[in-house]
Amino acid sequence: MDVLGDWWNPLIIRECLYGVTRFDELQGWLNIGRNILAQRLAKLVDQGILERRLYQERPPRYEYQLTEKGYDAAKVVIATMPFGDEWMFGEGREPIRIYDRETHQRVRPVVVDANTGEPIDPRQLYAGPGPAFPPVDDVRRRRFVEYYERRSDPG
Amino acid sequence: MDVLGDWWNPLIIRECLYGVTRFDELQGWLNIGRNILAQRLAKLVDQGILERRLYQERPPRYEYQLTEKGYDAAKVVIATMPFGDEWMFGEGREPIRIYDRETHQRVRPVVVDANTGEPIDPRQLYAGPGPAFPPVDDVRRRRFVEYYERRSDPG
Repeated sequence: MDVLGDWWNPLIIRECLYGVTRFDELQGWLNIGRNILAQRLAKLVDQGILERRLYQERPPRYEYQLTEKGYDAAKVVIATMPFGDEWMFGEGREPIRIYDRETHQRVRPVVVDANTGEPIDPRQLYAGPGPAFPPVDDVRRRRFVEYYERRSDPG
Repeated sequence: MDVLGDWWNPLIIRECLYGVTRFDELQGWLNIGRNILAQRLAKLVDQGILERRLYQERPPRYEYQLTEKGYDAAKVVIATMPFGDEWMFGEGREPIRIYDRETHQRVRPVVVDANTGEPIDPRQLYAGPGPAFPPVDDVRRRRFVEYYERRSDPG
């Protein structure tokens, strides 16, 4: 969650996805202080989301490319777009739209269940302990399982 | 973006989705200070993500329910789960799994393009100005359109 937890991270990931990859360009687009941007970029490199590349030697200038993990994080950022479009801007009032590079058709992200292909309705979900649910904290585990059973009962 | 921008918000939304809705329960599960939790909950109520309900009068105790907008935000939170499962825990090492309340089948969230049903590959996307792209800032607009055209060229 930390990867997406900072206000700036999704915005930086989004700009890199859109092709804004150089420090100075990122700074201009995001309207962010140089220190904060440098700090956030270093963290994203540490986390394996971005790779730093020297694109000019004198003076040294860097650009930032999404890694494979970064492109996976970008999927999550893309999944947030319809939320903003619906609740903040409204249909026909989107500031930005995304398109497929080959077909040039507009892309409309939706979160579906891979097993059924149906859009996910959070009201229809319940959560249960996975194989690596922390085993050490028995009280916490018991309480979670109680919730789990309560939620899993459709009544 | 602000809705999901704070580290705590997605975690609070997730707990409410899982049925952890009372102040004291949220505090225990999230291991968060009461002041910070109260502040975050008030903000989420302001933003229309949560609704506060009195469930006990003496002493007054409140629970928090996701609104329609809140359930839409929860979709985005759910979309983040595979990222954590793949990059932080690994297959077979997930701390939590989600299931469908009716079929009890495991749900695997994936972000697809609603038009094609195909999983979204961020490498295949480019962004363009939408109908409400800020018209006031012409320099910014021109630069964005330049990026847009550069990215939209598959060459």
